[in-house]
Amino acid sequence: MEKKRIAVFFGGRSPEHDVSVISGLQVLQALDQTKYEAFPVYITTDGKWLVGDILRDRANYLLDKNAYKKVTEVTLDVTFQDNVGKKGALLAKKSMFFSSLKVEEFDVAIPVFHGLYGEDGNIQGLFELAGIPYTGMRTMASSILMDKVVTKHMLRSLGIPYLPYAKLKRPDEGYLIPKDKLSSMLRDSNIDFPCIIKPSHLGSSIGVAKVDNIDELGACLPAIFEMDDSAIIEPFVQNLVEYNVAVSKISGDVETSAIERPKAVDELLDFKQKYLSGGDNKTGTKNSETISEGMLSLTRELNPKLEKAMEEQIITCSKILFEAIDGSGAPRIDYIGDFKTGDIWLNEVNPCPGSFGYFLWEAAEEPLLFSDFLSGLIEEALFERQKRKLLKDPVPAEARLLRRRLG
Amino acid sequence: MEKKRIAVFFGGRSPEHDVSVISGLQVLQALDQTKYEAFPVYITTDGKWLVGDILRDRANYLLDKNAYKKVTEVTLDVTFQDNVGKKGALLAKKSMFFSSLKVEEFDVAIPVFHGLYGEDGNIQGLFELAGIPYTGMRTMASSILMDKVVTKHMLRSLGIPYLPYAKLKRPDEGYLIPKDKLSSMLRDSNIDFPCIIKPSHLGSSIGVAKVDNIDELGACLPAIFEMDDSAIIEPFVQNLVEYNVAVSKISGDVETSAIERPKAVDELLDFKQKYLSGGDNKTGTKNSETISEGMLSLTRELNPKLEKAMEEQIITCSKILFEAIDGSGAPRIDYIGDFKTGDIWLNEVNPCPGSFGYFLWEAAEEPLLFSDFLSGLIEEALFERQKRKLLKDPVPAEARLLRRRLG
Repeated sequence: MEKKRIAVFFGGRSPEHDVSVISGLQVLQALDQTKYEAFPVYITTDGKWLVGDILRDRANYLLDKNAYKKVTEVTLDVTFQDNVGKKGALLAKKSMFFSSLKVEEFDVAIPVFHGLYGEDGNIQGLFELAGIPYTGMRTMASSILMDKVVTKHMLRSLGIPYLPYAKLKRPDEGYLIPKDKLSSMLRDSNIDFPCIIKPSHLGSSIGVAKVDNIDELGACLPAIFEMDDSAIIEPFVQNLVEYNVAVSKISGDVETSAIERPKAVDELLDFKQKYLSGGDNKTGTKNSETISEGMLSLTRELNPKLEKAMEEQIITCSKILFEAIDGSGAPRIDYIGDFKTGDIWLNEVNPCPGSFGYFLWEAAEEPLLFSDFLSGLIEEALFERQKRKLLKDPVPAEARLLRRRLG
Repeated sequence: MEKKRIAVFFGGRSPEHDVSVISGLQVLQALDQTKYEAFPVYITTDGKWLVGDILRDRANYLLDKNAYKKVTEVTLDVTFQDNVGKKGALLAKKSMFFSSLKVEEFDVAIPVFHGLYGEDGNIQGLFELAGIPYTGMRTMASSILMDKVVTKHMLRSLGIPYLPYAKLKRPDEGYLIPKDKLSSMLRDSNIDFPCIIKPSHLGSSIGVAKVDNIDELGACLPAIFEMDDSAIIEPFVQNLVEYNVAVSKISGDVETSAIERPKAVDELLDFKQKYLSGGDNKTGTKNSETISEGMLSLTRELNPKLEKAMEEQIITCSKILFEAIDGSGAPRIDYIGDFKTGDIWLNEVNPCPGSFGYFLWEAAEEPLLFSDFLSGLIEEALFERQKRKLLKDPVPAEARLLRRRLG
């Protein structure tokens, strides 16, 4: 049987570009080579799409002039591919005389992006439009989960506990909001100091800050509004404990992964620590092994001892949310709790978590190796595409079922 | 000043293809030619993208072989266009030696699609990714509003009245659901016969049926599941009255249009009647005038006499929903009510209503001509694009604000 060609997309214009490159190369490395023939599609920070073998090596990022000669700038054919044998097609941006425009063809796309454009439904929309099978969450689920406020609306409707919040929209002019307005918003939302302020759409703890008073709060706004058009404020949770769990239906049923408890650190949990612990950034993270299990265990506890009721709550809420938004892929759902009171709230969801959260599946009750997990996601991508195909082509202008009214 | 080039996209693979062509040609016709130079981009029912002057004339649809020679098959460059002077670019699908791949360039896209792929966030995702200004709702708002169940979750969270419902997912095998399962779902959702069944994602009353018993309900499922992967059941509203209103913020503030009351018809409100009344389909609807005001008034009453409280409720709920999903464009929000009890429920939202709902704006308190309304949408598209530009390029790996924890 011919191997399926898999295009692994990563990089992109999001602030989380670098993390995406790491996750993308991990995926390329881990794909089952007996089944798939995979190649990288790298989107630069300024939005160019590149293909070429040198992109397989982390050491070649970011690209210098010399490396640039070894890659080809491409775009994706957005027109619908439906006929048997038609595939996703990457076309050369520059017309090359006496050669085909088609540079690469592929059967399935694996978008490995974190944050804006790649995890928020936008590149998913492109794949839907072109009819290209792709892994992960669909357009709507991605766009909802990347918006912290709309996610809370879903949680409220579903009866899933979440922290109260106030939403701050970026003013049309300038990045400042008067202190009295901030104070009254906090009062209306029943939020006291200290509180947490964060951008409404970014992930990876980017722009998240704990503030102790109205001056600190005001001072954080310009930096957040440079990155996002709205911010949310939440109460600061005392006696903080966090639990994360991934959800997927690649086995056919909706299932959860192992639960992890990210370890509390005394001072900072920053971007670098969250993702790069164990990765040797100087020599380049060439494959997933360099983020060793040993190093990972320094930052998280897998399958922590949990009271039965809390474990069940985490699993049940995760499945309810996943099903309510027509979940696919393997999003990671993050909870935040107070270990003294036992309260727990669903905090946020990552449609495409760092490293695809593979360690959560490897530590699950029925362990799933990264490579098999990726094969499952690819199978699901093909199945989701097939489901869409059942949608009939345009029906005749006379709809087949008519609404009968008795006015 | 140079005229802005506007690409008007319409057609597409949705069951609402034909309606989209009519709306698209209306838009082309109505655009202010002193400001804009517009051209059509027609997406065929099988997903090809075509440009060419003959597409301006309704009489040329669907295309015969001869007409096909006069159009060019294109695709859109999906890579990010940010530098000053760069524009959205349509590229020839077939390599033409000694000629540029670029067939057309444009400043702003106007997607005029109804239903799947064009109104549901998918083509919006493509424009976001490519950084091309586009009119109408953004990716997330479009995708939420095209899903009737997720829209209800938003309404529940926002405290906006909606009808109770039961959701039916298409079974993985076959299109039938056992009667006892249907009965128990209706019981759980407190829905009695007669009730309404409809696809979760399609618009234009396609697939909507009123059913009187469990046999009729079961019989409707196969046809719906051929078109959509889920269906919803709602109670049938006695003494039915409907009100529609459009919302936009093109003036700077969130404003509503005139309210319309679609006239109750004794037997059928079908696709054809909803959109084509007054359009002479045999000779081709060549411009918006052929759908004359006189004919339109047969199917709807504009600015109907309403009790103040109900009018306020319609306006307030519409604005709340529009703002909660970061509204843009000019969606039409449809309400359904019982004229005897005075109850009213938000029924569904059309991110891109038929004919862009221009007659609702022309009949507004401060009337807005279709042509000026379109200019407003184009200005908003440029403004929305500009807002995104404020999002900074990738921040350094060390996020600028760090989360301070006191664990």
